[in-house]
Amino acid sequence: MVAIEPVSEAHADRARERQLHLTKPPGSLGRLEDIAVRLAAIQRREDPVSRDRCIFVFAADHGVTEEGVSAYPSRVTQQMLWNFASGGAAINALARVAEARVDVVDVGVGSGTRNFARERAMSRGELEAAMAKGAEKAHQASNEGVVLAGLGEMGIGNTTAASAVSAALTGATPAQVTGAGTGLDASGVRTKTDVVSRALELHELSSEEPLRILECIGGLEMAALTGFCLEAGARRMAILVDGFITTAAFAVAWKLQPLVKDYAFFSHLSCERGHRVLLDWMGGNPLLDLGLRLGEGTGSALAMPIIAAAVEAHNGMATFESAGVSGRT
Amino acid sequence: MVAIEPVSEAHADRARERQLHLTKPPGSLGRLEDIAVRLAAIQRREDPVSRDRCIFVFAADHGVTEEGVSAYPSRVTQQMLWNFASGGAAINALARVAEARVDVVDVGVGSGTRNFARERAMSRGELEAAMAKGAEKAHQASNEGVVLAGLGEMGIGNTTAASAVSAALTGATPAQVTGAGTGLDASGVRTKTDVVSRALELHELSSEEPLRILECIGGLEMAALTGFCLEAGARRMAILVDGFITTAAFAVAWKLQPLVKDYAFFSHLSCERGHRVLLDWMGGNPLLDLGLRLGEGTGSALAMPIIAAAVEAHNGMATFESAGVSGRT
Repeated sequence: MVAIEPVSEAHADRARERQLHLTKPPGSLGRLEDIAVRLAAIQRREDPVSRDRCIFVFAADHGVTEEGVSAYPSRVTQQMLWNFASGGAAINALARVAEARVDVVDVGVGSGTRNFARERAMSRGELEAAMAKGAEKAHQASNEGVVLAGLGEMGIGNTTAASAVSAALTGATPAQVTGAGTGLDASGVRTKTDVVSRALELHELSSEEPLRILECIGGLEMAALTGFCLEAGARRMAILVDGFITTAAFAVAWKLQPLVKDYAFFSHLSCERGHRVLLDWMGGNPLLDLGLRLGEGTGSALAMPIIAAAVEAHNGMATFESAGVSGRT
Repeated sequence: MVAIEPVSEAHADRARERQLHLTKPPGSLGRLEDIAVRLAAIQRREDPVSRDRCIFVFAADHGVTEEGVSAYPSRVTQQMLWNFASGGAAINALARVAEARVDVVDVGVGSGTRNFARERAMSRGELEAAMAKGAEKAHQASNEGVVLAGLGEMGIGNTTAASAVSAALTGATPAQVTGAGTGLDASGVRTKTDVVSRALELHELSSEEPLRILECIGGLEMAALTGFCLEAGARRMAILVDGFITTAAFAVAWKLQPLVKDYAFFSHLSCERGHRVLLDWMGGNPLLDLGLRLGEGTGSALAMPIIAAAVEAHNGMATFESAGVSGRT
C-alpha cells in the first residue's frame, strides 16, 4: 500500500501569515481561512489552486437488496448510470454549477456483491481488484491535473452496506447507524436494521480489521472509494468526502492510514443518521448542513464553490499594505 | 411605502410537483428543493432563474466611533471603498466565484451619522433620503434584470449600530447582542456594550417604531438596506441577507412589512452574537455556518452558488419518465 506523507506545515505557516495581511480583520473569514491554509499544506504551495475539479461517482450493485432493504429496485443502479451519461441526474446539475467534470466508474453494476446477510459480500481478490480500480482512477486523475476530487457513489442497497460498515468500525449499534436510505418507512427501517444485525453476527468482525469489514459487508463501490482515497492522499490530491456511503469508505481508509484525513474535507452532514456517528468518530466537521440524503457526490459538488471561494480570497485579495488600508488602532 | 404582495402559492405548488418527478428520492435534495420552490413562488415562474446576480454593498460612516467602539479607525470605511473599486476586497474575490457583480453604494462615507450615544444618529429627512436611495437602487437593479440581490455593507462602527437596533427591536439586553465586531478584546466589548446601553436609555425607543429606531440609533447604510429590501420585495426580487448588520436592517423592513421575509434567504450565521438573536426573533434559518464575521456581503456571495445549484437541479434534471428510471417498488 502506498504511504501517505504528512501535509506541509511549512506551507500552512506561510499561508497563515499571508491571511494576516489580507484586507480583513484576522480570522474574519472563518473556515474559509482554514480551507485555504490546509489546501496550501496539501498542495505544498503558497497559492493553492482549486482546479481541475472532478466528481468521481463509483457505482456497483448490492446482493443484500434481496433482503428487501431499499425503496427502489436494483435495476435503478444501471438506469441511473444512463442518466449520469446523459447529464440528467442531480450530480450532473450540481457539477455544472461547481464547474467540475463528472467521472462515473462502474465497479460492479449488474455484477455486484453477494448478499452479505448470508455470505461474504466479496472475495479478498474482488476486494483488492475494486480497491486497485479506485487507486488507478486517483492516479490517472492526478496525472491529468485534478486537484479537487469529489467523492460520489451510486448503488441501490448501499446505505445498508454503509450502516453495517459503520457499526463494525465504530462499535455503534445497528439502530444507531441505520436510517431510511432512499425513503423507507418505519417498518422498512426495522427490516433493514435486522439485516445489519444479522450480518454483524454472521461475520464476527473486529474494528481492527478494516479490510475484512469491507470484504464481508462492504460494497464494490465502497472498496473502490477506499482505494481512491488512499491513492489520492499519497498523490496530494484534496478529497471532498460526500455523504454516508463515501464517508464509510473514507473511514476504512482513515483506519488504514490516519494521515489521509489531512487531505480530506467533509463536505456536508447528511440526514442519514449513521453519517453523524461516523463523522463524530473521526472528528470530522462538515462544511454544509442542507438536509441532503441523495449521495451521488451532490454534497461534494456543493462544497466545491466554497473551496473555490477560499482559494480566490487567499490568492486574490489585496493586503493592507498594497491597498493602503489602515490597520488596527 | 410600496406594498409587498405575497409570493405565488400556485407557482410553489407546481414547482413542488415537478420536484416529485425528478430522478431522485422525493425530498432527498433537502433545502435545495425548498429554495427552488420558493424562488418559483417569488418569480412567479415554474423554471426559476438565478441570474443576474449582484451584491449591493451600502457604505457609510458612523459618528458613534467617537466612543472608541471599533478596533479600526473610521478612515478605513473610505479606504475599503477604494479597495472594493480595485477588486482587492474579500467581497470582490467571493463575488467572482459567485459570478455576481459588486455594486458599491456610498450613502454617507465621510458624512455619516452623528454619535447616537449623545444625539439622534440622523434626522427624519436623512433617514428618508437614505431609504429612498436604497429603494431607488433596488428599482434600478430590477429594471436591469437582477433577480438575486445579495445584501452587503461597509462602515466602521456599524456593528455597534446593529447591536443597538437589535436590542431595541427584539428586547434583548445590550450584552446579548453586542460582540467583538472587527476584533475587540473583552474590555473593548464592555465599552461597546456600555455605549449601546447608554444609547438605549437616551432615546427611549419602542419596538413598535422601527423607523424611529433607525433614525435614532441606526446607520445610513442600514437605512438604505431597509429601503432596498422593501423595494426588492415589491419588485419580486429575491434577497440574500448577509450577516449581522444587513440582518438588522432587514429586521426593520420585516417589522414594517412582514411579507418581505418570503422574498429573503438568510445566507449564513455570523459569529457576531447578536446575529442569532435576530434570526431567532424572525424565525430565520441560515443556509451556511462557516464562522464568518466580515460582512461586506461575503455570506451573500457564498450562498449564491447554492441558490444556483438549487435552480440548476430544478430546471436541468431529468424526470423518472424522461430518463426511463424505475420508481419506488
